[in-house]
Amino acid sequence: MAGVLSQAERDSALAELDGWTAVEGRDAIHKSYTFKTFNQAFAFMTRVALAAEKMDHHPEWFNVYNRVDITLSSHDVGGVSQRDVDLAKKAERFAASFG
Amino acid sequence: MAGVLSQAERDSALAELDGWTAVEGRDAIHKSYTFKTFNQAFAFMTRVALAAEKMDHHPEWFNVYNRVDITLSSHDVGGVSQRDVDLAKKAERFAASFG
Repeated sequence: MAGVLSQAERDSALAELDGWTAVEGRDAIHKSYTFKTFNQAFAFMTRVALAAEKMDHHPEWFNVYNRVDITLSSHDVGGVSQRDVDLAKKAERFAASFG
Repeated sequence: MAGVLSQAERDSALAELDGWTAVEGRDAIHKSYTFKTFNQAFAFMTRVALAAEKMDHHPEWFNVYNRVDITLSSHDVGGVSQRDVDLAKKAERFAASFG
């Protein structure tokens, strides 16, 4: 089980994740994705959901039409862990597939 | 295109929708669903997403693990319309299929 990343480790990971930022007031990372349509947004969510279920590590997320806001945090360790970074990287790859 | 329901029409519709309530401060309706697992929650979301896409009428929703919070409003008419009630009824039927 991965532990909480130090602030330096988290900042280093965020520097490599385009558009991901630390959430103010809690130990979590966040990105808002905008797609062309609801169809693309939900297809993206489905890819993330399958990856999340496989990792047994799930997002907090909000969707309205073509927008998907994702927040990642590891509730079991009380902060951002390597698993959040790994899921964020997968989300980045999936989002990039909707050109 | 369906127009905004009157308050009486909306209240009458809500009375038939178990657990759905008016959102305070805006003309929208809301329900928080809790399932057994993320798998069930996302399966439910997928059924709602397919129905929403077919209706061309989409929810605002938030998911964390086994919980799905749905808010429905018709942005094009600026309030709750019959389409929101129709989508809420579908959500009720889909949720009931996860026993």
